[in-house]
Amino acid sequence: MDKKMKVGIIGAGRIGRVHAMSISNYIPEVEIKAVSDIYYPSAEKLAKDLGIPNSYENYQEIINDPEIDAVLVCSSTDTHAQISIEAANMKKHVFCEKPVDLSVEKVEAVLKAVEENGVKLQIGFNRRFDHNFRKVKELIKSGDLGDLHIVKITSRDPEPPNPEYVAVSGGMFMDMTIHDFDMARFLVDSEVEEVYVAAACRVDEKIGEAGDVDTAVITLRFKNGTLCVIDNSRKAVYGYDQRVEVFGSKGKAEVANDTPSTATWSTADGVFGEKPKYFFLERYMESFATEIKEFVDAIINDKETPVTGIDGLKPILIGLAAKESVKEGRPVKL
Amino acid sequence: MDKKMKVGIIGAGRIGRVHAMSISNYIPEVEIKAVSDIYYPSAEKLAKDLGIPNSYENYQEIINDPEIDAVLVCSSTDTHAQISIEAANMKKHVFCEKPVDLSVEKVEAVLKAVEENGVKLQIGFNRRFDHNFRKVKELIKSGDLGDLHIVKITSRDPEPPNPEYVAVSGGMFMDMTIHDFDMARFLVDSEVEEVYVAAACRVDEKIGEAGDVDTAVITLRFKNGTLCVIDNSRKAVYGYDQRVEVFGSKGKAEVANDTPSTATWSTADGVFGEKPKYFFLERYMESFATEIKEFVDAIINDKETPVTGIDGLKPILIGLAAKESVKEGRPVKL
Amino acid sequence: MDKKMKVGIIGAGRIGRVHAMSISNYIPEVEIKAVSDIYYPSAEKLAKDLGIPNSYENYQEIINDPEIDAVLVCSSTDTHAQISIEAANMKKHVFCEKPVDLSVEKVEAVLKAVEENGVKLQIGFNRRFDHNFRKVKELIKSGDLGDLHIVKITSRDPEPPNPEYVAVSGGMFMDMTIHDFDMARFLVDSEVEEVYVAAACRVDEKIGEAGDVDTAVITLRFKNGTLCVIDNSRKAVYGYDQRVEVFGSKGKAEVANDTPSTATWSTADGVFGEKPKYFFLERYMESFATEIKEFVDAIINDKETPVTGIDGLKPILIGLAAKESVKEGRPVKL
Amino acid sequence: MDKKMKVGIIGAGRIGRVHAMSISNYIPEVEIKAVSDIYYPSAEKLAKDLGIPNSYENYQEIINDPEIDAVLVCSSTDTHAQISIEAANMKKHVFCEKPVDLSVEKVEAVLKAVEENGVKLQIGFNRRFDHNFRKVKELIKSGDLGDLHIVKITSRDPEPPNPEYVAVSGGMFMDMTIHDFDMARFLVDSEVEEVYVAAACRVDEKIGEAGDVDTAVITLRFKNGTLCVIDNSRKAVYGYDQRVEVFGSKGKAEVANDTPSTATWSTADGVFGEKPKYFFLERYMESFATEIKEFVDAIINDKETPVTGIDGLKPILIGLAAKESVKEGRPVKL
Repeated sequence: MDKKMKVGIIGAGRIGRVHAMSISNYIPEVEIKAVSDIYYPSAEKLAKDLGIPNSYENYQEIINDPEIDAVLVCSSTDTHAQISIEAANMKKHVFCEKPVDLSVEKVEAVLKAVEENGVKLQIGFNRRFDHNFRKVKELIKSGDLGDLHIVKITSRDPEPPNPEYVAVSGGMFMDMTIHDFDMARFLVDSEVEEVYVAAACRVDEKIGEAGDVDTAVITLRFKNGTLCVIDNSRKAVYGYDQRVEVFGSKGKAEVANDTPSTATWSTADGVFGEKPKYFFLERYMESFATEIKEFVDAIINDKETPVTGIDGLKPILIGLAAKESVKEGRPVKL
Repeated sequence: MDKKMKVGIIGAGRIGRVHAMSISNYIPEVEIKAVSDIYYPSAEKLAKDLGIPNSYENYQEIINDPEIDAVLVCSSTDTHAQISIEAANMKKHVFCEKPVDLSVEKVEAVLKAVEENGVKLQIGFNRRFDHNFRKVKELIKSGDLGDLHIVKITSRDPEPPNPEYVAVSGGMFMDMTIHDFDMARFLVDSEVEEVYVAAACRVDEKIGEAGDVDTAVITLRFKNGTLCVIDNSRKAVYGYDQRVEVFGSKGKAEVANDTPSTATWSTADGVFGEKPKYFFLERYMESFATEIKEFVDAIINDKETPVTGIDGLKPILIGLAAKESVKEGRPVKL
Repeated sequence: MDKKMKVGIIGAGRIGRVHAMSISNYIPEVEIKAVSDIYYPSAEKLAKDLGIPNSYENYQEIINDPEIDAVLVCSSTDTHAQISIEAANMKKHVFCEKPVDLSVEKVEAVLKAVEENGVKLQIGFNRRFDHNFRKVKELIKSGDLGDLHIVKITSRDPEPPNPEYVAVSGGMFMDMTIHDFDMARFLVDSEVEEVYVAAACRVDEKIGEAGDVDTAVITLRFKNGTLCVIDNSRKAVYGYDQRVEVFGSKGKAEVANDTPSTATWSTADGVFGEKPKYFFLERYMESFATEIKEFVDAIINDKETPVTGIDGLKPILIGLAAKESVKEGRPVKL
Repeated sequence: MDKKMKVGIIGAGRIGRVHAMSISNYIPEVEIKAVSDIYYPSAEKLAKDLGIPNSYENYQEIINDPEIDAVLVCSSTDTHAQISIEAANMKKHVFCEKPVDLSVEKVEAVLKAVEENGVKLQIGFNRRFDHNFRKVKELIKSGDLGDLHIVKITSRDPEPPNPEYVAVSGGMFMDMTIHDFDMARFLVDSEVEEVYVAAACRVDEKIGEAGDVDTAVITLRFKNGTLCVIDNSRKAVYGYDQRVEVFGSKGKAEVANDTPSTATWSTADGVFGEKPKYFFLERYMESFATEIKEFVDAIINDKETPVTGIDGLKPILIGLAAKESVKEGRPVKL
């Protein structure tokens, strides 16, 4: 590319700002030309902070800008599909935050639009780019662990969302476990054929009143024979707990949490260490930059994106099966 | 007690020898008066090695000895119930290896005999006495972890048994997972009400041909709301993998494997550490001595034994439910 | 400040580039107006890569630019003092890489020039800003460790420098251990009064032929009574080994190396982990950004810099004493 | 040997009891025939507790017993040499607790008596038999670490002795560091040629008043070029701290402390682990049994003992040099 690739960011909330900063700081070959937000002051502020030349209330100003090569869809979940389709139709490459949508039909419509327009689509499953999980993936791919038999994913948030949030988010399986479903597919490299969930509301009864659960043990059976178990909690008082362990015919690999330092200390009272990094912004900051770098790389070098539309669709199907399993108290086939 | 308590050991195989050595080495208040084995040379050799005055082929010589206060039933599983009942009827206290029997009726008959004769019964779930799991139990009891939400038990053997063994042992859930079922009950301090198993034969197809599985993820739902997941494999190439993690409203606790030393070393090729202690004799040796000490203590001080007949029965019920879950592909209520 | 602070970077080698990138990426309140290098193509390339408007061969173009508020002296060690003095005389704040100079007189001349001109001076002891060492410092300052009794610093490089380099660098104590002398002062918060060195040439005999050592155990006695021991090697085959341990009347604290991931894995061959991050650019990248941020902060808010001229002078005095101790085979008082 | 080897234990204090229990519990090929103590009730009680047939006030009853093959000299330090010589003269093999004596002449007299009488002598440097340090020794011997460059030994007691004790013990270097001097020789497999000590009294000023130090950093230079540093404290509030690290041309190895369990736990307040095992009885219990086993093995199979008379003498020479170094403030050659 002779000149810089130009992108627009749609949605100037927390994750939109993270991506904007990643591009500013680490991706010199990309220029952010515009940012939009339905709450215009957010867009304006982000533009000012990072020296982005244009800010809009209406995302269509971005989509209609012929100079813009790609858009990052960082708006609220219910608008992801519509904006992604419109962007694809205007021949923009699309980076879309997860989940694409809670409706399978809408997700499929996005995939169709992307395919028809010959543009790239990448879904924001950033954890695939985390240094710890990447190392586990490398160990698996090297063959050093043999055939996978059991995969264990621990994923616990430091504090629960508002009960109002779970009512619109699609619930824990769609807003939180969806990352773990993606991680399971990423590590196992096969498709889930059955889901069983044992779940409960143990953290906040208002979450239960809102029709959701906050604690779960989820068993996935993959087509290639691997068994996977995910354990989730909306509230780990000691902080964000994000670990995986994979066990195969030739060995196992596991990762511990990242911590602010490697310090340990000992007094008459005991032996002490650091709690995990607080939440996803602290833990996964580096992975957010890496995913955008690889999105840009896929566009520039015309390669498949590392997290495709199908990778966006499958976890939603697993999440819907998980919800059905809770409702019916039995394993559900996909 | 003015004079030493006297015990007889029935079964001079591996575990009988372990208990005999524990008593010789660590429990000066107990004298082993006799040992028996249906293969007499085993009994004779053990007697000679440890200076035990009497050795027999027929266990009834022990049961009928009026000087003997208690027996340790270390014979093959299919004889546990019969011998325990006969011993109880002769007013001997009984320490019985696990599982008591694969048949619920027979286990209940043992419990009945013990109760009618007013003797003590302790079941050989030695892991409750392991230093690591005891520490976790203490942390739970102290209240520092709050209400338990999720318990995770990893239990993997270093090598699979002969396929012939699984045909008579009752299968993986009865000969191996039974320890994990007991550990789950020990930690959670509640009863299981539902079991779901996802299992497979991944290690040795001959185990599958023998009608058993060798790899499993087992979800237990407890009456008090705790969810528990056990993952099992008959073969972890890196050694005996025995860990638990408990997660509650106020924190979590976990234990790592024991290793032969704390050494780590680093070269140009990488960073290295010790594999876990090889198998149950290495890992749990200390716990075998402790369980016998506490059995003796319960007799001497007329206290309840730390692993009662009910503790022997419940894991069998869970194991049977697990087998049904595999067969029917659904969660099974107890 | 209404407008951005402007800086010039003198020296476009490795560390000059590191600082330039830190400012570009993380310090939006600072603009790099110019870069110079006696090898002009280096300056030109760095300017082009980061969009720095001016590049020069002669550093005096920077020093004479009235718009420039501060300079970063990243040229070769033998030019640090001269450039710093000239810059101070032109009322520029000075960030000077370590060591300021190998001659105490020249360092003192820099301190004098800085003082007379009322400008700030910060020395590039970046390790004070490392997340791990900062945590140890916090624990010390909190009082949780009590009075310090023993401080241990391990500092080993992954590969030795060229023997030619040690001939001009001032030797291991001046180019490598100088960081450890600063770390010792930083942690202990007192002055060294005696130094004893046991040293040898074990890594590369050419280093010995060049009149230097490559392996050392250095004992420092501080005025406040703390004993400190530094162990150095020019070559740790497993990677950059950077650890400290502090031991006091109320406890101890220690830090492990940073690693590329937290992964550990186990196979039939053993248990494995990650080697330390390779060398100082990988390990200390974050600290380079932090030190510049704090330099800028000291200027903007007219505070003392976190690493003063005295902090630049003292390690040189300790280093000279260390060299004398090796030569004379006895402890040397400062 | 057709019949059991017979030993006598001289001194029924703490360490005498430890050895007696090790033999009773783990060494069936040895019979303890007698125990003596100048405070007779101690001997009597130990004999009763372990079923030892004879107990005496006067150790000569043991030495003169023709049936006794070997004696364990566990009396107070000032009697070690005299008793060992008398025992050797009566053709008894001798296991002597450390230090043999504070006087080099007396130690040499013991070595001479042992040699002239053709009996075995083993010194009670039990740490050589510890599972952790043995692993490090194996790694060194395997050549995996290459030539040793730096050895670091951390040795800190959980609480200081009475100041009265240090007045008679020979001081910290003779009663505590002597173990570390032996460990250094054991690991490095060469002889010390120079010692430098930086020491202080930081823990208890009464120790200083008694003429001793309680905190030290000791540098040893070995003939083979290895540098070794030992750091000692009489009081680590978090418990007994016993670690080594060895660094060589091909790698490093290190050991952590043993802990009562592998548990770690996390709450809102932080991350916690176990303190080290409290003191030497807890930490080194297994090594006490192993050293006696190997002493017995050396006698039965007529092999050199694993800790010879020379191994008993050398650390005393190092300790005397250490004291001189403190006194004169300079390195002392041996």
